[in-house]
Amino acid sequence: MEKVGLEKHTSKQFDADLEDVRELVLSMGGLVEQQIADAVRALVDGDGGLGEDVVRGDTEVNRMEIEIDEECTRILARRAPQAGDLRLVIAIAKTITDLERIGDEAEKIGRMATHLASYERPKSAFRQIETLGRHVREMVRDVLDAFARLDSESAVHVARNDEEVDREYEGIVRQCITYMMEDPRTIRHMLDVLWAVKALERIGDHSTNIGEYVVYFVEGKDVRHIGLEAMEKEIAKSMRPRGDASASD
Amino acid sequence: MEKVGLEKHTSKQFDADLEDVRELVLSMGGLVEQQIADAVRALVDGDGGLGEDVVRGDTEVNRMEIEIDEECTRILARRAPQAGDLRLVIAIAKTITDLERIGDEAEKIGRMATHLASYERPKSAFRQIETLGRHVREMVRDVLDAFARLDSESAVHVARNDEEVDREYEGIVRQCITYMMEDPRTIRHMLDVLWAVKALERIGDHSTNIGEYVVYFVEGKDVRHIGLEAMEKEIAKSMRPRGDASASD
Repeated sequence: MEKVGLEKHTSKQFDADLEDVRELVLSMGGLVEQQIADAVRALVDGDGGLGEDVVRGDTEVNRMEIEIDEECTRILARRAPQAGDLRLVIAIAKTITDLERIGDEAEKIGRMATHLASYERPKSAFRQIETLGRHVREMVRDVLDAFARLDSESAVHVARNDEEVDREYEGIVRQCITYMMEDPRTIRHMLDVLWAVKALERIGDHSTNIGEYVVYFVEGKDVRHIGLEAMEKEIAKSMRPRGDASASD
Repeated sequence: MEKVGLEKHTSKQFDADLEDVRELVLSMGGLVEQQIADAVRALVDGDGGLGEDVVRGDTEVNRMEIEIDEECTRILARRAPQAGDLRLVIAIAKTITDLERIGDEAEKIGRMATHLASYERPKSAFRQIETLGRHVREMVRDVLDAFARLDSESAVHVARNDEEVDREYEGIVRQCITYMMEDPRTIRHMLDVLWAVKALERIGDHSTNIGEYVVYFVEGKDVRHIGLEAMEKEIAKSMRPRGDASASD
């Protein structure tokens, strides 16, 4: 089992470089979390001004993606990292692509919030959106926590939460369809609501992707596309004490 | 201007490694193009079996992503590439993430095609979907061509086409809304159509992302998030003969 931690690095300057870039990722993550929170607040409260703030705020998310990407490239060029160090840099480069796209989804929600600001909102649908928004924000926070603590078990747990998020999403879609059928004049507006809800659901998907990069870094195994059960099995295998490889699988 | 081509590489084995991985990307791209074509055909013709084939075919797209990613990691570890070579490896690693997500969108369309197979389809909307599908497939092909020929001008041209794709997408959405308002019983089905159309629109976005990676590799400049006009200006600058830097900007 090639399991790695940050203590393994070879030079002090390298440690410092990696620590800097990890800090940057966490602060980009914090910004993205705030963007989601503001976007959902803007949507639920019908606050068009806050929606516009979110749209403008995406520029900073984009700037951070490029900064971190350049930092990763610089580390690859200067340090030519190997094994776990190399995997960490690759995992970071991929993580920030998903973080940036989470930012894009928040921006879309902000935009929809501005469209919908003057529209009378069906209370119960928006309460459910608030709950869904809180859950996807928790997913982002949890997966960044897992990233910070190099905790692959928690990272897989995030993927498990995505199933709940998908169920909540389906419930809201069904409710929106009911509204539209009852009053076809609401169709145009309800579609905007649906696009926003869809954006929340995609944030869940991106968080799951980030969770997979954490597992790739910590376990040295690519667990993309293998499904949740197989992912959990892989992690469990690596947690088992050595010599126990023949245990029931 | 740090403009690079493949002739610049230092060792023959390295050239061969890079050539192999470029070939893999192009063949992954060919597969993804076919998936889009089949998915749109399945949707337009109401061919549920073909839709299922597309869903199953996504496994191969996923497998190729992991294979190419591993190849990139191997090149980084063994060769510690610098400058343009390093940028090429990074551009490839990012390109295949977008190709894989294009594959996911094709899979979604295949799934919707299967749902909608038995549903009577409004002819004119589906003709427009066929056109949109052809256009996004052309975008994918053109951007992979630009990638193969290291042609940043064509890569920017792809981003320009995305504006046309977005307009076509908006037109279909408006038409679907009209159908839904005229006959609210169609709402549920028309939403499935809308999700499929949305997936096509996203394929356009992913192609634009790939175009930006091509520019990043060829020009050594990160042109993400700067907008089309600024992108074209950057490319134009690098095409200008040296000593002409004071020309009107």
